[in-house]
Amino acid sequence: MNAAFVVFDQMTALDFVGFYDPLSRLKSMDFMPGFQWQICSFCDDVSDSQDLRFDPDSVGQSLSDFDLLVVPGGYGSRSLQHNEKFIDWLKTATPVPLKASVCTGSLLLGAAGFLKGKRATTHPKAYAELSRYCAQVTDQRVVDEDNIVTARGVFSSIDLGLYLVERLAGKETRAEIAKQMDYPFYSKG
Amino acid sequence: MNAAFVVFDQMTALDFVGFYDPLSRLKSMDFMPGFQWQICSFCDDVSDSQDLRFDPDSVGQSLSDFDLLVVPGGYGSRSLQHNEKFIDWLKTATPVPLKASVCTGSLLLGAAGFLKGKRATTHPKAYAELSRYCAQVTDQRVVDEDNIVTARGVFSSIDLGLYLVERLAGKETRAEIAKQMDYPFYSKG
Repeated sequence: MNAAFVVFDQMTALDFVGFYDPLSRLKSMDFMPGFQWQICSFCDDVSDSQDLRFDPDSVGQSLSDFDLLVVPGGYGSRSLQHNEKFIDWLKTATPVPLKASVCTGSLLLGAAGFLKGKRATTHPKAYAELSRYCAQVTDQRVVDEDNIVTARGVFSSIDLGLYLVERLAGKETRAEIAKQMDYPFYSKG
Repeated sequence: MNAAFVVFDQMTALDFVGFYDPLSRLKSMDFMPGFQWQICSFCDDVSDSQDLRFDPDSVGQSLSDFDLLVVPGGYGSRSLQHNEKFIDWLKTATPVPLKASVCTGSLLLGAAGFLKGKRATTHPKAYAELSRYCAQVTDQRVVDEDNIVTARGVFSSIDLGLYLVERLAGKETRAEIAKQMDYPFYSKG
């Protein structure tokens, strides 16, 4: 399984690292030794809103061959949803069978047309903005609708990561990873 | 207020980004506009255990003038605790009035002598290893003992960040930041 972890300039670091930690443990803790990922960007320079830099593994390459796409949110998403070139790049992920987002990352999935007719969620402050892209905005922390999984605000990135771990590798694996992360809560999708 | 956020090779990314998110919001959300930080390393090349790269702002510079020191954990800490040059560098933080760690970062604070005679915590799998450095190992998620604040495993980095936000800027600020992070729990120190 090969995952594309999208990064973009002015993203929120925890939106990315929150799902990255549990998902990368599928490999590092040997639950899915074949689980691989690439950090995929549309531009070379990627920093969070406070100048914390992230280095992409690939820039501008097609996303079509991945098995999983995960898109974080952050201030940058507010303008990127209207950036035709970025959205055209994101649309190369159309064949990816499982797509996910954190926080305002769902605005990007929405702008690419992936949320049409579906229920979805985002940061509570962006519910109105998301509503133009999907059938129904919900306040669940993680929404899984026809292989499009959206999560709420920043911290829910960890909920999303653990949800995807469970979906890909089962409840026991999720429990083991949550224990190693010292995560004391159980948050359902 | 000027904080030193330590990074080191083979650290756990979420150990760092977990406290970085709430603490950096002290500035980005205008609660403490003068809150500044530097990402401080002892070596140029810093990646987490899965090759996610972090760029330090300063390398090998004295930590003595900072007001707050925060040290993440991760596999690298297991060898760094025995690395005399690294520990000598960390000891330059001796005058820093408030020091904190996440997960096995407490082994590094311990090796620098900062935990002598104090209660402290770490990842549950490292309790025995920590015991040689401190008076008592506890299983609290966040322990604040004489201005040395230690937190448990990976995820408790967020608890630590929110705890430090409350200590530096009060309960209301913590509540506002937790709300913006969409953090649904209240975890006491």
